[in-house]
Amino acid sequence: MKLFGGIESGGTKFVCIVGNGPDNLLKEERFPTTTPRETIHKVTEFFRPYVKSRELAAVGIASFGPLDLNPDSPTYGYITTTPKAGWSQIDLYGEIQGKVDVPVAFDTDVNAAAFGEQYWIPENRSMDPFLYITVGTGIGVGVIINGSPLHGLIHPEAGHLALPHNWQRDPFPGVCPYHGDCLEGLASGLSMSKRWGQSPESLPDGHPGWDLESDYLAFALVNLIYAYSPRRIILGGGVSQHPGLIGAVRCKIKQFMNDYMQSPMLLEKIDDYILPPALGNRSGGLGAIAMAARLVLT
Amino acid sequence: MKLFGGIESGGTKFVCIVGNGPDNLLKEERFPTTTPRETIHKVTEFFRPYVKSRELAAVGIASFGPLDLNPDSPTYGYITTTPKAGWSQIDLYGEIQGKVDVPVAFDTDVNAAAFGEQYWIPENRSMDPFLYITVGTGIGVGVIINGSPLHGLIHPEAGHLALPHNWQRDPFPGVCPYHGDCLEGLASGLSMSKRWGQSPESLPDGHPGWDLESDYLAFALVNLIYAYSPRRIILGGGVSQHPGLIGAVRCKIKQFMNDYMQSPMLLEKIDDYILPPALGNRSGGLGAIAMAARLVLT
Repeated sequence: MKLFGGIESGGTKFVCIVGNGPDNLLKEERFPTTTPRETIHKVTEFFRPYVKSRELAAVGIASFGPLDLNPDSPTYGYITTTPKAGWSQIDLYGEIQGKVDVPVAFDTDVNAAAFGEQYWIPENRSMDPFLYITVGTGIGVGVIINGSPLHGLIHPEAGHLALPHNWQRDPFPGVCPYHGDCLEGLASGLSMSKRWGQSPESLPDGHPGWDLESDYLAFALVNLIYAYSPRRIILGGGVSQHPGLIGAVRCKIKQFMNDYMQSPMLLEKIDDYILPPALGNRSGGLGAIAMAARLVLT
Repeated sequence: MKLFGGIESGGTKFVCIVGNGPDNLLKEERFPTTTPRETIHKVTEFFRPYVKSRELAAVGIASFGPLDLNPDSPTYGYITTTPKAGWSQIDLYGEIQGKVDVPVAFDTDVNAAAFGEQYWIPENRSMDPFLYITVGTGIGVGVIINGSPLHGLIHPEAGHLALPHNWQRDPFPGVCPYHGDCLEGLASGLSMSKRWGQSPESLPDGHPGWDLESDYLAFALVNLIYAYSPRRIILGGGVSQHPGLIGAVRCKIKQFMNDYMQSPMLLEKIDDYILPPALGNRSGGLGAIAMAARLVLT
């Protein structure tokens, strides 16, 4: 039985897993994101025994971005212009591929999470387009269309959508260093911490912050629905797990769309249209494993 | 030489053409959209000689929506819930196919326009994803991904994106009967007429309406860029033809994006990234012909 490696590369931590599916993970390790040299060294050390034993067939990398995903580019596989200190212009793909010496798949963390939720969950297979949105410290959107992650010019950056911002109700200017009050600027975990002076985890039920959060997320999802006409949306990330939030978002989507799109999925079955991740917090890692599997099994 | 028919079905007029490409159009006719029975009769009369002579190989329909594009649906080919009086639940595809008795392709007016601009213009062929946005009486967005028009759950409805609306600067509530101040509500030709009491055609250069219009269109295009990561965007429709508007939109897109997406197309070559339609006001009709051609030539 061949094994696949999954690497979830985040701005605060890296997660490495090895196995061949959600029900067969042999080992998992998490470590903080320090310097590229030290962090990548830990990654390659994690996989070394499986490389040595020749059990490792391929590796998938699900990385924070922006990334260069153009296979014809001289900087394919690089993290490009991240504000994360020390990580700009880092050849993440090349450094890891050189050490594991097996085929390596490379995509954004959110595209990988979307791919994983679709690949491993049978009822998601026919849901195309398929979206995964993560609302954590930042916000990102992964997109699968015709069975493949969407790249295009670079890759989707729908965490930065421009949204209605009622300055009287919410005078907070937003935290996005590029756009101020874009989606991520207004609705990320970081924006909640800065706006309310406490982390989203500690913000109690009934705090007006949750009502505001569900408004912004509903506007964002309405825009994603109008743009992609998706068949299913997964709402993941730490902030989305707050009890009641996903229900409030579903309710406000219906309110904002006002029956404009006449689909039973929106009018009657929105609970089955916008869902939490079936793979919990492993969508990204298991998506990386799915990408690795697809690389060698097809 | 086989001929193809193209039908552009709009809320105010229908356009029928026959030919086999931008340089070989044999006949074109325009007539106002009245009742479905009368209008569809005129369409079938237009094509009758070519059906009789057996020259007509296929027909494409580029229609105002919303449409049922699901081939497995019992109402495939219908205009569904349009506010256009008398045109809800009209079997446009079936009525026409029954009369012309050749293969008929069916899609939204904007998907067809996008397909036409990509199909007939060689330098657009490799531009994927490829978007066509029309700003006329209403606003619509057509999307080609992996060479095919995007449908998904229904079809994109990105004319109804939620956008930043500064009520102090622009107290106009918008004209969209469903959403009020969505993109179409704030930036369509109809919204301009209602806001300023004069049609966009008569609104002079330098009128503050044009500055506002370019703001809304730039926000919309930024959202489309972040969502689809397109390789090219065509900005069509009557309102977009106002001198200087496309330049102002390009300029504000750069300003709003603030160098966030590090692509030469956005940073240096935006004049070659956001373009007027190469097919002028025939993108939809020639797109319908392209859809018809693809139906029988592939």
